[in-house]
Amino acid sequence: MPLVAALDSVPGVRGVLGLFEGVCTGAADGYGRMTGRPALTLLHLGPGFANGIANLHNARRAPTPVVNVIGDQATWHRDADAPLTSDIGSLASPVSCWLRSADDPARLGADAAEAISAAWQAPGGVATLIVPADVQWSDGGRPGALAPPTPPPLPSGATLDAVAEALRHARAPAVLLRGASLLEPGLRSAARIAAVCGARLLCDTFPSRMERGVGRPGVERIGYFPEQGAETLKGTDLLVLAGSRDPVTFFGYPHTPSRLAPESCSSQVLAEPEEDIAGALEALADALAAPGAGRSVEPAERLRSSGALDPMTLGAAVAAVQPEGAIVMDEGATSGLPHYRAAAAAPPHTYLALTGGAIGQGLPCATGAAIACPDRPVIALQADGSALYTLQALWTQAREGLDVTTVLCSNRSYRILQVELARSGVAEPGRNARAMTNLSDPTLDWVSLARGMGVPAARAEDAETLVRELEHGLTEPGPHLIEAVL
Amino acid sequence: MPLVAALDSVPGVRGVLGLFEGVCTGAADGYGRMTGRPALTLLHLGPGFANGIANLHNARRAPTPVVNVIGDQATWHRDADAPLTSDIGSLASPVSCWLRSADDPARLGADAAEAISAAWQAPGGVATLIVPADVQWSDGGRPGALAPPTPPPLPSGATLDAVAEALRHARAPAVLLRGASLLEPGLRSAARIAAVCGARLLCDTFPSRMERGVGRPGVERIGYFPEQGAETLKGTDLLVLAGSRDPVTFFGYPHTPSRLAPESCSSQVLAEPEEDIAGALEALADALAAPGAGRSVEPAERLRSSGALDPMTLGAAVAAVQPEGAIVMDEGATSGLPHYRAAAAAPPHTYLALTGGAIGQGLPCATGAAIACPDRPVIALQADGSALYTLQALWTQAREGLDVTTVLCSNRSYRILQVELARSGVAEPGRNARAMTNLSDPTLDWVSLARGMGVPAARAEDAETLVRELEHGLTEPGPHLIEAVL
Repeated sequence: MPLVAALDSVPGVRGVLGLFEGVCTGAADGYGRMTGRPALTLLHLGPGFANGIANLHNARRAPTPVVNVIGDQATWHRDADAPLTSDIGSLASPVSCWLRSADDPARLGADAAEAISAAWQAPGGVATLIVPADVQWSDGGRPGALAPPTPPPLPSGATLDAVAEALRHARAPAVLLRGASLLEPGLRSAARIAAVCGARLLCDTFPSRMERGVGRPGVERIGYFPEQGAETLKGTDLLVLAGSRDPVTFFGYPHTPSRLAPESCSSQVLAEPEEDIAGALEALADALAAPGAGRSVEPAERLRSSGALDPMTLGAAVAAVQPEGAIVMDEGATSGLPHYRAAAAAPPHTYLALTGGAIGQGLPCATGAAIACPDRPVIALQADGSALYTLQALWTQAREGLDVTTVLCSNRSYRILQVELARSGVAEPGRNARAMTNLSDPTLDWVSLARGMGVPAARAEDAETLVRELEHGLTEPGPHLIEAVL
Repeated sequence: MPLVAALDSVPGVRGVLGLFEGVCTGAADGYGRMTGRPALTLLHLGPGFANGIANLHNARRAPTPVVNVIGDQATWHRDADAPLTSDIGSLASPVSCWLRSADDPARLGADAAEAISAAWQAPGGVATLIVPADVQWSDGGRPGALAPPTPPPLPSGATLDAVAEALRHARAPAVLLRGASLLEPGLRSAARIAAVCGARLLCDTFPSRMERGVGRPGVERIGYFPEQGAETLKGTDLLVLAGSRDPVTFFGYPHTPSRLAPESCSSQVLAEPEEDIAGALEALADALAAPGAGRSVEPAERLRSSGALDPMTLGAAVAAVQPEGAIVMDEGATSGLPHYRAAAAAPPHTYLALTGGAIGQGLPCATGAAIACPDRPVIALQADGSALYTLQALWTQAREGLDVTTVLCSNRSYRILQVELARSGVAEPGRNARAMTNLSDPTLDWVSLARGMGVPAARAEDAETLVRELEHGLTEPGPHLIEAVL
């Protein structure tokens, strides 16, 4: 309570209420991705924090700067083991790059400043500060001095030379971009390298944030399933890791190696995540005497989508109308994939993906992105099964009047689980397995759910209606949801 | 996936889908409370487990037998640190009384049997078994031999004698009942003790499960706020702990001790939670030569409620119509309190409360109770702010056709936070503090939300309508929701 009351004691604090902690942590992730600065979540003891873990897992994998402040029992009340008491440290450590319990009021300000610095420092991370109730209400607190993040260092000249040398000798090199290298300056340098070395530009299956569209260098995404990922990397003899890690399969499968690259492919680190990745790419381009510009995506005719909705027509419909400057949060899962291809030549836009695989990220992350960028339209391309994890985010969008248009991909199943079930050799799932993987019986009515949360909603069963409703949602201020029935 | 497929390989397994893991763990808690046997949750890696932690925290505090099976990355794929990989053990240990990663297929059956035994043994607990994917799909598994729980032992004769002696000398004794002592046999013995010693019968503010109503011994609940709790215990000179712990405040407050009982009150353990609590009460009653029966609640005229809805009229309305044999899951928070008093002389019923303070328990727990007891009507007395945590439970109620009638107490605020804010001395909350504690702007439309989940719903703005809709909901099969606007 002292922390809640304190939100009004300092000017410039904007409190945003989430109706479930996973909304708050996912929104903090979206805010951090778009601004590079940490948002602060205020959470209540172990169970309140636990509700936010899944989206903090995604933030950790991004990685995104996020600061969690967790109100805890008074220090002297811990041993009483009251009902809400639990081991917060054990819950928090798997997602936190920095974790502390602030048990001394005199140090609380310094602890908070340190948490912010830890989260903010490149490449960003989740910092968690536990604040016992008595430390909140006690006298003796002093504001801490915030150390702004130090500029990330360039990799050593030896590293740059080694990578340049390897690129000169590679037959079929590829550069795997992650983090800052997927923003515009990094992409431009990467395109120069690609042009001079014939290197392909790749990104992970689920990038944290990528600038895309006409006029920007195009990047190929590594396929999701192991055979698709291996296909993406087939023939590659050198992988240059720009803030990235050697790519691995999403899950382990029988008789399938963890590593996706061919055995004969060597990997070479250009920059660690905590280094200046974009700077390293620029230095490498210069070292290779690359020309001043590489290739970018050419404008192409945008085809309007029509007919019955399926992932293809849905993706084409969204790509056809998404405006310049849009932020697309893609948690479309199996329904979202074709949009990625269709939007390659869309107007310049920002693409956000589900980094950690913890579903329920899309609606909250879109919410946070909209708070970060009030002048940009946000499109949430959202699978129905995943949306059900954190549908409460819709209410926050309504309360804050955020320009988020959600395309709710309603295929009424956990399609990815059905695919995985088939892949694991179950040709005819039994009654239980069928019941666990479909969302029908009863059918979820997303128009009612959205309206219940205060968000105007409509249903589209064909591409023409989807386009019309999208244009409406993107024009009218405030949030909208379109249930796209697949 | 092999675990999902396996659900159909053994007869008698009933798979129930929850659209969010907190629904599954809360339902397992409700099932365990009503049957005394563990339900099994099937969860997906660290983030999927994390989504279930809050309600497992409640189950741990109940305590309720629950078995979690968590599918994990293949053992050889862990080091690849794929996106969904995290430290499950660190997440699970705060809520688990038993925790193991089953890394050997040959031992998987034995591990599972051991998990079930650990959860099932009195007083019940949360057992968590992590099963890597390769252990699921590998050959060589063997069914484990399940050891049924051993009967809990009686406390020693010396303990019984000491408690009997203390009771004979106490001026104003009270017996604090928990766990099995709140079921009918325990209550009957406790009533005999009360009658012979003039002892009061008390229970915790949030009992896991209690049998209540006409013809059963009445039990006084310890008040929630510290001054209320202290008032309940005022004048008490001896607290006999029947499976319970010395009561403490829910939170720490300035200048307020953790312990609720007066300083001059001594506490004496009759039975530990893992002992035979009901048996101990019976033996104690015999040792005290108590008569064969104590007092029970007399029938009283049930007054019909009328007029505008507030917590009093709402509680009276529910108490007035709740049928014999009802299971009342009370997560009504500030709106639910008056019902507890009003229902003291309702027909015999079961009362379930929010044991661990982790909100979002009510709808899932009611769901599990209805699965456990298909012949009994379930009433979920549910606060709106808490309901928003796990509203997805409504869909499971619809799919399974469960007889759950939810009274959604729609006061459109986190009223308890507003109370706590006032208690902490904030007379006029600022803009942020107000925004963090009210649920209006926009108003949540629970009729739409319920219908979106496939549950018939109505709105009541006065007691007469609430009674009418309750009678309808309790008569018609399947789930219903009534938004009671306060």
